[in-house]
Amino acid sequence: MTVQKLQVGMAGLGRVGKLHAMNFLQKTPRAQLVAAFTPDPAEITWGRVNLEPHGVTLYTNYDEMLKHPGLQAVAIGTATSVHAEETIKAIEQDLHVLCEKPLSTDVEVCRAVVQAAKKKPHLKVMCGFSRRFDDSYRDAHAKMEQGLIGRPAIIRSQTCDKFDPSGFYVEYAAWSGGVFVDMSVHDIDLSLWFFGDEVLPKSISAHGITAVQPELKKYNDYDNAVGIVEFWNGKIAYYYCSRMMAAGQEDTTEIIGTEGKLTVNGNPQRNFVNLYHNGGITREIPHNFMGRFSPAFVQEANDFTAACLDNTPLPMKLSNAVKAVEIGSYLQEALVSGKQIHFDEIGRRIEKAQL
Amino acid sequence: MTVQKLQVGMAGLGRVGKLHAMNFLQKTPRAQLVAAFTPDPAEITWGRVNLEPHGVTLYTNYDEMLKHPGLQAVAIGTATSVHAEETIKAIEQDLHVLCEKPLSTDVEVCRAVVQAAKKKPHLKVMCGFSRRFDDSYRDAHAKMEQGLIGRPAIIRSQTCDKFDPSGFYVEYAAWSGGVFVDMSVHDIDLSLWFFGDEVLPKSISAHGITAVQPELKKYNDYDNAVGIVEFWNGKIAYYYCSRMMAAGQEDTTEIIGTEGKLTVNGNPQRNFVNLYHNGGITREIPHNFMGRFSPAFVQEANDFTAACLDNTPLPMKLSNAVKAVEIGSYLQEALVSGKQIHFDEIGRRIEKAQL
Amino acid sequence: MTVQKLQVGMAGLGRVGKLHAMNFLQKTPRAQLVAAFTPDPAEITWGRVNLEPHGVTLYTNYDEMLKHPGLQAVAIGTATSVHAEETIKAIEQDLHVLCEKPLSTDVEVCRAVVQAAKKKPHLKVMCGFSRRFDDSYRDAHAKMEQGLIGRPAIIRSQTCDKFDPSGFYVEYAAWSGGVFVDMSVHDIDLSLWFFGDEVLPKSISAHGITAVQPELKKYNDYDNAVGIVEFWNGKIAYYYCSRMMAAGQEDTTEIIGTEGKLTVNGNPQRNFVNLYHNGGITREIPHNFMGRFSPAFVQEANDFTAACLDNTPLPMKLSNAVKAVEIGSYLQEALVSGKQIHFDEIGRRIEKAQL
Amino acid sequence: MTVQKLQVGMAGLGRVGKLHAMNFLQKTPRAQLVAAFTPDPAEITWGRVNLEPHGVTLYTNYDEMLKHPGLQAVAIGTATSVHAEETIKAIEQDLHVLCEKPLSTDVEVCRAVVQAAKKKPHLKVMCGFSRRFDDSYRDAHAKMEQGLIGRPAIIRSQTCDKFDPSGFYVEYAAWSGGVFVDMSVHDIDLSLWFFGDEVLPKSISAHGITAVQPELKKYNDYDNAVGIVEFWNGKIAYYYCSRMMAAGQEDTTEIIGTEGKLTVNGNPQRNFVNLYHNGGITREIPHNFMGRFSPAFVQEANDFTAACLDNTPLPMKLSNAVKAVEIGSYLQEALVSGKQIHFDEIGRRIEKAQL
Repeated sequence: MTVQKLQVGMAGLGRVGKLHAMNFLQKTPRAQLVAAFTPDPAEITWGRVNLEPHGVTLYTNYDEMLKHPGLQAVAIGTATSVHAEETIKAIEQDLHVLCEKPLSTDVEVCRAVVQAAKKKPHLKVMCGFSRRFDDSYRDAHAKMEQGLIGRPAIIRSQTCDKFDPSGFYVEYAAWSGGVFVDMSVHDIDLSLWFFGDEVLPKSISAHGITAVQPELKKYNDYDNAVGIVEFWNGKIAYYYCSRMMAAGQEDTTEIIGTEGKLTVNGNPQRNFVNLYHNGGITREIPHNFMGRFSPAFVQEANDFTAACLDNTPLPMKLSNAVKAVEIGSYLQEALVSGKQIHFDEIGRRIEKAQL
Repeated sequence: MTVQKLQVGMAGLGRVGKLHAMNFLQKTPRAQLVAAFTPDPAEITWGRVNLEPHGVTLYTNYDEMLKHPGLQAVAIGTATSVHAEETIKAIEQDLHVLCEKPLSTDVEVCRAVVQAAKKKPHLKVMCGFSRRFDDSYRDAHAKMEQGLIGRPAIIRSQTCDKFDPSGFYVEYAAWSGGVFVDMSVHDIDLSLWFFGDEVLPKSISAHGITAVQPELKKYNDYDNAVGIVEFWNGKIAYYYCSRMMAAGQEDTTEIIGTEGKLTVNGNPQRNFVNLYHNGGITREIPHNFMGRFSPAFVQEANDFTAACLDNTPLPMKLSNAVKAVEIGSYLQEALVSGKQIHFDEIGRRIEKAQL
Repeated sequence: MTVQKLQVGMAGLGRVGKLHAMNFLQKTPRAQLVAAFTPDPAEITWGRVNLEPHGVTLYTNYDEMLKHPGLQAVAIGTATSVHAEETIKAIEQDLHVLCEKPLSTDVEVCRAVVQAAKKKPHLKVMCGFSRRFDDSYRDAHAKMEQGLIGRPAIIRSQTCDKFDPSGFYVEYAAWSGGVFVDMSVHDIDLSLWFFGDEVLPKSISAHGITAVQPELKKYNDYDNAVGIVEFWNGKIAYYYCSRMMAAGQEDTTEIIGTEGKLTVNGNPQRNFVNLYHNGGITREIPHNFMGRFSPAFVQEANDFTAACLDNTPLPMKLSNAVKAVEIGSYLQEALVSGKQIHFDEIGRRIEKAQL
Repeated sequence: MTVQKLQVGMAGLGRVGKLHAMNFLQKTPRAQLVAAFTPDPAEITWGRVNLEPHGVTLYTNYDEMLKHPGLQAVAIGTATSVHAEETIKAIEQDLHVLCEKPLSTDVEVCRAVVQAAKKKPHLKVMCGFSRRFDDSYRDAHAKMEQGLIGRPAIIRSQTCDKFDPSGFYVEYAAWSGGVFVDMSVHDIDLSLWFFGDEVLPKSISAHGITAVQPELKKYNDYDNAVGIVEFWNGKIAYYYCSRMMAAGQEDTTEIIGTEGKLTVNGNPQRNFVNLYHNGGITREIPHNFMGRFSPAFVQEANDFTAACLDNTPLPMKLSNAVKAVEIGSYLQEALVSGKQIHFDEIGRRIEKAQL
């Protein structure tokens, strides 16, 4: 008897694409990476060294990869601008899809993906929000479900990256959708997870600055921003995103309930080492999201694979991915316009003058 | 040779008044508590037991206490509603004043106190924001001044009390000025300290809920609120205040600069004890502000005394106390009205429509 | 082109054996688990479900497994009593060996393994001390090598297990070699790593109690023991081992140098979650060594595989494994006899009377 | 009505003497510092500035201070060599005594003090072990008494000072009694407190090195030492003392019971500030015992005063102070001689040969 493995193709071999490719190749026992696509010559070269010897066929044309014999699923880690199109194409080819977040920075485009997926309910189509697969977030969610903090009412969540002096994030701002869509979308997704995805925003405020990269202003973006989302059912989530942390990546979440509070990563640490020296006690923290969330990406690949092979439910709804981008877009709009945004009780946007 | 001690009278012997009285009586070597006033019979009884035997004369009439022979200074810890009046009266009697925060919940009334104080520049008139006297906040401020975090850009600060099931805070809301004026005023004052008191607000947003005490709504107040103050010089402060913490008092501040971050009380703890038990590792945290800030109140009494006796500058300007209440009031207005508030570059309020 | 994978056979499918088997099967990309041996019917059943479908041949006879076609390496996770014999047999079959610690609880038997390995210098024979493969210990060692703590002088290290009420450890004591050989051997190995494996003991003391399992006395063993090893070059290591922790596994190490200190796991935590509740702030800790060291076991399998395939040096010498058991045995002797043990400067044991 | 205050005289105005003097002068409301003695001209000068203006009479002759009109109690903070003599003299003058630890480094001399005190049972005679007055230790003790850790079985306790490059501790070793008597005596006293002062040692081992101050050897002393005391009732305490910490003072204690563990100061910190910087997260720790235990010294002065004025029991027995020095001396002997020391079940010392 031989074990059936999910035949996976990888689209995109950039930073996150490489991570996914290696996870499917080496750390997802029930999956087999059989194909990879990238239009980028440097990435193809990387693939020749790291993937081809393990039996992975390389493609420079996405449509051709989709026709790889026996292919069952595609993982998409290309540029955000092509996520939606590639996802829809894969769905049309009857392939399961794991797409990196976000589906698109455009809410309407996101919705088109959801529509396409709805037509093929036998397919597993997931937009990967890595924190949903993190042990600590899962433990916190389980503890909340057990009632350990009463009714959750306030979420504080931040996505804060170590400062990157290369200037990369300035040009990136041209198409990233802005900091709330690019960074806080993780925190918004967590809010939907912990508050329930049926929550409807009531009002949204946001403020931002360009503390270290004033050039961001040309793209209407910011390097530090704070936003508040008040929901109709008496809950509030507030977010901070920043690209200027000195010590490293600081993604922290608090879920505050009527009878207790859960914190995730309130005390960042890279590992279990502390150095006692003349100036005190120092511990290091991860320099980037991979230092914090690598195991979550592995879990994600395994959970997605299991859902495809066993036809079990995915751990998150595709529509949430749209809702997270939608709320992120509202926050970004509030940030750029300097205006609070309001919604009625069934989620329709209203002008304050109407109130 | 005998040592000259500052002759102090205490107004109010409620919770905070008792604390100040005992500090001036026992923990302020250069001061001597000689008089105390309270209109409350139960507090007078407490004074008979705890103060009178130490030579403190008790008064039930504030004006009479002000005439106590040799009195040099008054500490005011009565109800907020009489802070301003009592402060002005003391100033008129040529007495130094240490007044509990806030001077008033009404900005105009606060200004009247500042005006009265301006006429007597030889007097020390201070509105006590206890955190300015806390070792940790002072250390953080000194580290910022040393440039250890670059230029400060973002402040996150919260004042979060342990849930009080007695319902006290519902009635209290009738005259407290609201949560931002009553609680966050500490965090606002910290912002003025760390950002510089010349900062001018550019826009203000706030959102709140009544998670555990819905009765607060009748006073237009909330038990959890989040607010953002954006300043004109590219700085942002954001605040969270809550009256529903399960574990105890959690007053935490982060000062985020372009090259580093300082946290104060990011990891609350009551003392140095950890209990390892079947469910993990547990440490307790203080149940109220006294468990956290008692030494700061002692420091405050001593610093105030030194300033009076030595005619040295007070550690904080009286005008800051007004500015903190003013910003708190704007936050409260933004909270209750559901509208963002905007200001021009010289601090004048504008309507968004004008922009 | 096809990638060459190390053909591995697993001996023993008990608790640790299963862990190794799954690691070689799923988490060691350059290795292929091709065979597994166990004499235990229940373990064979487990193997039929978990290994056979992946192409692993099961054996109930160790010698036959050694003849598995193409086999290159054996991982040994059977009972300690057969570790040495199985290792020697594998060496004789020209196979690389990764043997779980200890080689034997008998120093002479350990030495026989080293002798056998010496005859086949082309083989990689390693006794796996998992902490050598742990990220945090490796980081601490690297920091020490960089000189961040000056010259290391004192090591405090403890291996403390969560209390197991089943009574398992009483019968286990009959053949475990005693707590210092069974548990502290990890801490001793760390001492050899951080102090250098050339260190020679000068004197050894130990004391123990049976706090929760008095039945251990029948096997001359203890459930809590403290030992000190003083080395000739002015260094001291002291150890604590316990089987009665309430909260979970607490394996902690401090390396104290002339200019600083490194701690590893001074603050145990299971993950990044803290629960704030009415009684304070609680975090959980791992319940067993797998909760703490699982990733180290994966690293070990990968490092061993790389050394075999690339003929690169192993990260630790086999002779250290003997030395760790030897020092553990001395500690155990000092514990049971109630006598300090002394050595001369070339490592020969001496009686104190001779001094 | 006037309040009766305990009339206190201070002997010694060195480092600890100044601390006690200022505490009795300013932080002990029920006591009045009326006299101070020191033979040292520099200390007299300090007293003229800091004490005399507050009505404290200075003496250069101890016997004369004892005759100060109305004197009721003496606090002794002179050199250890005269502690005992001065304590006995004060007792003979019918004065209460708070003597800094230790009464003497000589057990017989300690016993003479206890004998003198026994003759005057109406007097309060206390040897101050500051940790008994520390909030955290008291909280830990209370939690143990509540049964939160089951039956205490193992204590690990360390007294570790920041390295003092001045060389002071070399000459100090000539008369300090050695590190176990000078430093670990605090940890031993804690053991008597947590285990009960009736515990009898069964066997004692100790090992030491001179890692940073080899000159200590001329006084048979060490800068790092580890000792184990096994008690007859199945309990073990082990101690580490060091004078070479880089980061600051690290006095840490663990009390390990059959159902839990209490740690005191497992995570040293100077205050609530953390600095996030390019190299990680750093917190400072106190540089000396005053940074950690100042409030305990204040508590001690107040508790002692209350016991004298109210004739209530002291929080610790004088005989414990002797026992702590006795055990410290045994540890020091074991350290210097390189021999384990054994005792029979009624506490008589035995030679191992007799066993």
